[in-house]
Amino acid sequence: MNRESFAAGERLVSPAYVRQGCEARRSHEHLIRLLLEKGKCPENGWDESTLELFLHELAIMDSNNFLGNCGVGEREGRVASALVARRHYRFIHGIGRSGDISAVQPKAAGSSLLNKITNSLVLDIIKLAGVHTVTNCFVVPMATGMSLTLCFLTLRHKRPKAKYIIWPRIDQKSCFKSMITAGFEPVVIENVLEGDELRTDLKAVEAKVQELGPDYVLCIHSTTSCFAPRVPDRLEELAVICANYGIPHIVNNAYGVQSSKCMHLIQQGARVGRIDAFVQSLDKNFMVPVGGAIIAGFNDSFIQEISKMYPGRASASPSLDVLITLLSLGSNGYKKLLKERKEMFSYLSNQIKKLSEAYNERLLHTPHNPISLAVTLKTLDEHHDEAVTQLGSMLFTRQVSGARVVPLGSVQTVSGYTFRGFMSHTNNYPCAYLNAASAIGMKMQDVDLFIKRLDKCLKAVRKEQSKESDDNYDKTEDVDIEEMALKPDNVLLDTYQDASS
Amino acid sequence: MNRESFAAGERLVSPAYVRQGCEARRSHEHLIRLLLEKGKCPENGWDESTLELFLHELAIMDSNNFLGNCGVGEREGRVASALVARRHYRFIHGIGRSGDISAVQPKAAGSSLLNKITNSLVLDIIKLAGVHTVTNCFVVPMATGMSLTLCFLTLRHKRPKAKYIIWPRIDQKSCFKSMITAGFEPVVIENVLEGDELRTDLKAVEAKVQELGPDYVLCIHSTTSCFAPRVPDRLEELAVICANYGIPHIVNNAYGVQSSKCMHLIQQGARVGRIDAFVQSLDKNFMVPVGGAIIAGFNDSFIQEISKMYPGRASASPSLDVLITLLSLGSNGYKKLLKERKEMFSYLSNQIKKLSEAYNERLLHTPHNPISLAVTLKTLDEHHDEAVTQLGSMLFTRQVSGARVVPLGSVQTVSGYTFRGFMSHTNNYPCAYLNAASAIGMKMQDVDLFIKRLDKCLKAVRKEQSKESDDNYDKTEDVDIEEMALKPDNVLLDTYQDASS
Amino acid sequence: MNRESFAAGERLVSPAYVRQGCEARRSHEHLIRLLLEKGKCPENGWDESTLELFLHELAIMDSNNFLGNCGVGEREGRVASALVARRHYRFIHGIGRSGDISAVQPKAAGSSLLNKITNSLVLDIIKLAGVHTVTNCFVVPMATGMSLTLCFLTLRHKRPKAKYIIWPRIDQKSCFKSMITAGFEPVVIENVLEGDELRTDLKAVEAKVQELGPDYVLCIHSTTSCFAPRVPDRLEELAVICANYGIPHIVNNAYGVQSSKCMHLIQQGARVGRIDAFVQSLDKNFMVPVGGAIIAGFNDSFIQEISKMYPGRASASPSLDVLITLLSLGSNGYKKLLKERKEMFSYLSNQIKKLSEAYNERLLHTPHNPISLAVTLKTLDEHHDEAVTQLGSMLFTRQVSGARVVPLGSVQTVSGYTFRGFMSHTNNYPCAYLNAASAIGMKMQDVDLFIKRLDKCLKAVRKEQSKESDDNYDKTEDVDIEEMALKPDNVLLDTYQDASS
Amino acid sequence: MNRESFAAGERLVSPAYVRQGCEARRSHEHLIRLLLEKGKCPENGWDESTLELFLHELAIMDSNNFLGNCGVGEREGRVASALVARRHYRFIHGIGRSGDISAVQPKAAGSSLLNKITNSLVLDIIKLAGVHTVTNCFVVPMATGMSLTLCFLTLRHKRPKAKYIIWPRIDQKSCFKSMITAGFEPVVIENVLEGDELRTDLKAVEAKVQELGPDYVLCIHSTTSCFAPRVPDRLEELAVICANYGIPHIVNNAYGVQSSKCMHLIQQGARVGRIDAFVQSLDKNFMVPVGGAIIAGFNDSFIQEISKMYPGRASASPSLDVLITLLSLGSNGYKKLLKERKEMFSYLSNQIKKLSEAYNERLLHTPHNPISLAVTLKTLDEHHDEAVTQLGSMLFTRQVSGARVVPLGSVQTVSGYTFRGFMSHTNNYPCAYLNAASAIGMKMQDVDLFIKRLDKCLKAVRKEQSKESDDNYDKTEDVDIEEMALKPDNVLLDTYQDASS
Repeated sequence: MNRESFAAGERLVSPAYVRQGCEARRSHEHLIRLLLEKGKCPENGWDESTLELFLHELAIMDSNNFLGNCGVGEREGRVASALVARRHYRFIHGIGRSGDISAVQPKAAGSSLLNKITNSLVLDIIKLAGVHTVTNCFVVPMATGMSLTLCFLTLRHKRPKAKYIIWPRIDQKSCFKSMITAGFEPVVIENVLEGDELRTDLKAVEAKVQELGPDYVLCIHSTTSCFAPRVPDRLEELAVICANYGIPHIVNNAYGVQSSKCMHLIQQGARVGRIDAFVQSLDKNFMVPVGGAIIAGFNDSFIQEISKMYPGRASASPSLDVLITLLSLGSNGYKKLLKERKEMFSYLSNQIKKLSEAYNERLLHTPHNPISLAVTLKTLDEHHDEAVTQLGSMLFTRQVSGARVVPLGSVQTVSGYTFRGFMSHTNNYPCAYLNAASAIGMKMQDVDLFIKRLDKCLKAVRKEQSKESDDNYDKTEDVDIEEMALKPDNVLLDTYQDASS
Repeated sequence: MNRESFAAGERLVSPAYVRQGCEARRSHEHLIRLLLEKGKCPENGWDESTLELFLHELAIMDSNNFLGNCGVGEREGRVASALVARRHYRFIHGIGRSGDISAVQPKAAGSSLLNKITNSLVLDIIKLAGVHTVTNCFVVPMATGMSLTLCFLTLRHKRPKAKYIIWPRIDQKSCFKSMITAGFEPVVIENVLEGDELRTDLKAVEAKVQELGPDYVLCIHSTTSCFAPRVPDRLEELAVICANYGIPHIVNNAYGVQSSKCMHLIQQGARVGRIDAFVQSLDKNFMVPVGGAIIAGFNDSFIQEISKMYPGRASASPSLDVLITLLSLGSNGYKKLLKERKEMFSYLSNQIKKLSEAYNERLLHTPHNPISLAVTLKTLDEHHDEAVTQLGSMLFTRQVSGARVVPLGSVQTVSGYTFRGFMSHTNNYPCAYLNAASAIGMKMQDVDLFIKRLDKCLKAVRKEQSKESDDNYDKTEDVDIEEMALKPDNVLLDTYQDASS
Repeated sequence: MNRESFAAGERLVSPAYVRQGCEARRSHEHLIRLLLEKGKCPENGWDESTLELFLHELAIMDSNNFLGNCGVGEREGRVASALVARRHYRFIHGIGRSGDISAVQPKAAGSSLLNKITNSLVLDIIKLAGVHTVTNCFVVPMATGMSLTLCFLTLRHKRPKAKYIIWPRIDQKSCFKSMITAGFEPVVIENVLEGDELRTDLKAVEAKVQELGPDYVLCIHSTTSCFAPRVPDRLEELAVICANYGIPHIVNNAYGVQSSKCMHLIQQGARVGRIDAFVQSLDKNFMVPVGGAIIAGFNDSFIQEISKMYPGRASASPSLDVLITLLSLGSNGYKKLLKERKEMFSYLSNQIKKLSEAYNERLLHTPHNPISLAVTLKTLDEHHDEAVTQLGSMLFTRQVSGARVVPLGSVQTVSGYTFRGFMSHTNNYPCAYLNAASAIGMKMQDVDLFIKRLDKCLKAVRKEQSKESDDNYDKTEDVDIEEMALKPDNVLLDTYQDASS
Repeated sequence: MNRESFAAGERLVSPAYVRQGCEARRSHEHLIRLLLEKGKCPENGWDESTLELFLHELAIMDSNNFLGNCGVGEREGRVASALVARRHYRFIHGIGRSGDISAVQPKAAGSSLLNKITNSLVLDIIKLAGVHTVTNCFVVPMATGMSLTLCFLTLRHKRPKAKYIIWPRIDQKSCFKSMITAGFEPVVIENVLEGDELRTDLKAVEAKVQELGPDYVLCIHSTTSCFAPRVPDRLEELAVICANYGIPHIVNNAYGVQSSKCMHLIQQGARVGRIDAFVQSLDKNFMVPVGGAIIAGFNDSFIQEISKMYPGRASASPSLDVLITLLSLGSNGYKKLLKERKEMFSYLSNQIKKLSEAYNERLLHTPHNPISLAVTLKTLDEHHDEAVTQLGSMLFTRQVSGARVVPLGSVQTVSGYTFRGFMSHTNNYPCAYLNAASAIGMKMQDVDLFIKRLDKCLKAVRKEQSKESDDNYDKTEDVDIEEMALKPDNVLLDTYQDASS
């Protein structure tokens, strides 16, 4: 509403009240202005009404929402379904242009602003989360794996001879495939066992660089966040090797933004050595739907090169999600989530420790892993071949999601490469184990339910091992409402094995 | 977004594009300004994005949406559920104040504007629909019956001696009860049969006025829209009687806004005689949810008196619905709906006429009823006592809604008054019949499906009458997907009888 | 999705996962079943997804949402605007029928269920809130005032001689007008001053009953929740008088559900004497938009009579709001809100007490009022005529809503009755004062902001009184963002006087 | 609601009405079952309520919506913002798994079903649109360019020697960059001029294959939809060359689904020769937001290979959009849109033809291009260097979007390759021209406004060329509301040049 509208309003109802309302409107506008001028995440989260006003204002700046627009092109932001238009707040043109995913669209000033502001906010949050010297980043509507691929494809043009990517082993398919998809040969560096932890074999890395010749190495591809007992790579040392040999360094920081330790490693790596880009998932760090990642780095022009490597426009949906989320939370809200995650990590550790001891098992000592924990399943493994997998299956049917059992001796072939001891990040870990993680947004209730259900499942598996009949075990158990899903688990074994990989 | 925000935006993306977006914003604002300045329904319906922008702008003028508000009263527009807040576009304070449902609320400038504008738009539409000299109206969040009660209660204060309301009979419970609830004694004037039509018995009305004495009559309570074969009351003549005897005249125009004939009657009545207020349903005339009515009239101060009679605040929900609807449709959209309704009326007449002749029945000749039609059910009635009711039940289970069968001889007692021939508006209509209406929003598909299903039902009832077995009839019928609900109907007989009354 | 759909789903993705999803669906269905079977508010609030599933399931049971429906009536639940349909979850038919607002609609089984369940839930909550022996209640889409009117209109039919309503004075327009609108003569009983409190004059009530004659008294109309220093009426004693003289008793419990004290009074009144109905606001007690009330009582058939007195259908909107709210909160959530309100009341008392003492004012001692507080404005009043009103105006422009200043000597005429000392519930309260209340949903932040702003305003008014220039006062004040609205307040004086009445 | 819930419902309201509602529910379920069983686009579009019921049912099958779920993994589908959850209908887990974008997710049976069904529906529509023998396809949440890159990356693994991609020139950056990004060297084949049309130089293609050696050619990358006067490539002949030389063939069918001619070319190419995959935009063909594409082909296993090449999960957002859209439209709705597009193409042709003749210009004769038209701007070009660009700028500021002026002699370097005559698909087209297209969803109003505004702009440019002062021109023009954006256009020249490229 403009000045004339307010004047007309004053004639309809009392001027004093309209003025009061008009005044109130200014506080919303004030917040919007601050955001546009500073490009920083507001400290306090915005009210839903400010947020929707802002999105509405941006949307009407896009040509598909012009009241008088006539479109005679092949891409005019027309929408067939009102449901679809509405769920996107009428942002239809996506982000970017043929030339560059960060570029401004003439037809869509609003979407372009949305894109710029989102990237700016995200940069602010990365700094806040610990990588203070990051200089540029952008949201890309692809998950972490494909985003890593894009980084590798960009490096290809700078390193024409390169054929190999050096990669300290981590048993997760996407990041492995990201190298294959980009057309490079992954050179797997096995981890070394230090206490219970699996850590980067720095000597092997350097030896491999020398063996292959630095020019033939596209980059070192390291990892922060990972399942225990693997721990984040020794980023500082890797960064120094990269600097020394002039090799790029791409860090897979998938769900590391939520951990100050992971972020600190990146910050330190960049300070003492070389990190070209680090890639993180939107959904895992910002509690938004799957499908976006942030590519960030310390060298403005390299990050721009990557963004120019993306051919064509792209979905604005992940950017919109993270924008809404950050504006709702504010930086204080996000910090609070980080703090709570850390507390939940301690709580989860303690509860698992207690439970494991009651079953003669042990929480692995992995102090370098700030997110994931592992507890041994030795007693299960000894008695019965399939007991470990069965436990996984039982947890799955009891609606425990994300718990991951790792049996010994699993072998898997991914894109032609064979991994022994797959899922455990090493050929031969000393024992089977179970993983659980404290990720952002976890609640105490998650931990409590998990511990309770794990307890029951362990008890049940034990009983079965002691040859007690299935009937008896059902009777002795105190069934509660959460357990209504309880039923023979064997049928799910195959399913589960597939599920947990 | 204000000037500074746009300036900041220009620094983030190209100034030319932002300016283009800013320009586009002005066309939305232009529409809003026109609305506020003129208070008229826009000719062309608004885009959803203009509409939502407008509602959003109004809502942030209410104190419950002030970012810095602190509330220390007993009614602060707090909302527990975000779903609820959102579905009301964050308008929480309702409309009106203790003193007057049309009054402005200091805490809620936005809701107050919404209320004023809605009333203004609705007034505009009533004029457009044919009552050109209407001077004031307001939306009240009560259905037609309770709104009539409010009118009667208002009149009570002006006519202390009055005990009776003269009411040409129409067999619909709400309008009858509206008089009982207000504490008056309805004086029922039986209709006279002219051809097939049931029409106002003017002589009886005037005789009754004289008999009771004008001062003891609160008002004449007449009706426009009604089920055939009753037709709208002779409003002109009634208005003249009212003028002559100094008796107020309240018109129940329930679903008459959609018919130019009904509106013309009101216009003429007011021109030649006296009409104090006419009341119409929101849902039946404007295709919004049940729950609101419009009280309108020709004397500004009397309408204000009624609005001041409503004690306290009221729901803004019906006002919001009709505002959204009228702004979406525009006056052109509403006119189009009126035109289509008229066309559907002709189409429905023709189709029913054809069908009825095939069954040796007859479309009653009721040219004065512009909305409702009646077709005889003589042949059914002759053979079998319950056949008429059974037909109604069969239509109901076949998802024909709104068709209404009227058997002979039904007797009903409402609030202590006994009506013979209830549903037929007269003690003894010559034959049983079926009603169907062409109301606003009806589609050709409604008519076609109705005719098809009626045909099948009539066929089925006939067969049963001819003692053909139920089995045979099922086999001969070509079942289609719409008919999947087909099943024994007798169980529903009682249900239906209840339903159709 | 039915059995066949799930089977088809199992063929598309893994059967084990579909079964897991199907299992999960059952927990939603379980909650819905419990609700329908027990008709009680669930202890724990429902998830938004269960809630929306439930509403969706109900909505498709209404004929306007039948895929194969054809409508040939005058009220078919057609909706012109998709926005409107959506905001009502496609419930279009409203609640009730011509005969009864609680009746079931043949065309709308879903809406009918919604209505029944809502009334059942609300009854459960009224019991939980303290009126354990309530037997029946219903939600009516009218605010408290009009709902009281409906009660009075119902009583009229049972007490043909009655002309008067005995009403211990409370200075709020709606409840006064509710009697006028119903056509009765309010007999005002002035309150008596006990300490700081204004309490019911029982002797005067009884004397008036005898004077007028019980048969000529429609009912006693008492009040619980009110602004201090008035306190809830002596309900027990009034109920005994009613029982003794055979006079109905209607209680205005506007925002009393939130206070265990008010509810206890009603419970006790009903136990020892007579209460026919008690009426409460939906918005003030359940944090939903303005526009609904609950009419409740201890005699099933009398409550049904009232519901049958409402002529015609009504809006389902208030019922839907309270249903969504209660299902979201659960009874635990509602109890938590009640508990927090009580705590805020103590906090507000303490903070006001402290502040008032700093200004040589005094928190009035009103222990019987559980919601509203009053603090004297003696020092203001002494110096300057308009200072009290100006304080109100200053608070208003500083976005303090709900604070209410009560100057001495205000006279107001409502519907022909003149009230001296209007707003203070008595002709001559000893001093001017300011009201603040702790209502459901109030946050500590509300209290803190209020105290801070009140402090500033009092300081400013004092300074002005001490003839210090306006300029000086602006300079000395530490302006913060909340204060940006600060500006000359005199222009608003008239406005405010209007606003606070 | 399950059986028990309905039974409980029958006790609350009449059994007959509940059964009627229950029956009605079955018709929704019937549609859902058909969809899941057949996997085909329904002929008639679904009602919004069926659609939302379906999405809701799917969503509650995902573990993040399980009421009893406890999550202890790193990716649990938690959502911080309710707005975000809602806009995705609570589908949070995205689609695909580490191994394959088409794979099923154990944690998300609902999202997995959504993904399968969407791909199945889209396949059905591709057949319906003309490529009857397509065997597999999948939606990928990347725009056309990146999707082409993914195809090329997949081919890399099958053709280790390949370095080149043969590409008949089309001046659009994304598709050119898609090859660069994949790490291949584009070999540009210049088009030949036939009449006004620019067509594939088949001889040059074949010669280039022979010159480079088939093994060194990754694939031929051809194009269907394009701006006139270029026309779709000679797909049949190219497909034969590919078959003969054993070279893969990837078709960029960006907005070709909407044209039966483009689809026919693909069908024919596959029949007589070799087409490995064809890629089309979601937004341009299905009126959804930018950000998705469909990769389709005739060899099931090759399409699967591509889907397995995508490393990791991906956004479900584009799939959800196209699913909603197709279910809303139904195949009949989509066919109607295709038919209207064709009609609009004729209408646009005729209108442009008329207008151009009035200005002594000519509609280029490009019968092979079914979507885009070009009209000469000879007269502009002769007089004044910048007149052509200025026309573009004027159209832009007048809210004509998508019109594209192509001046002579523009030179552009993309990723190191220099294109002469850029935008015109050839080094030296005979004249400057203007493009307009009839794309799906275009309305007659778009054409009429375009013609009107183009007329005004041409008139204005002419006048300027005739040295008439700017002032005069403003005065003589009849300004209407659409023209309010009218202002000096020169400032926008640079902007526009950027915009139109």
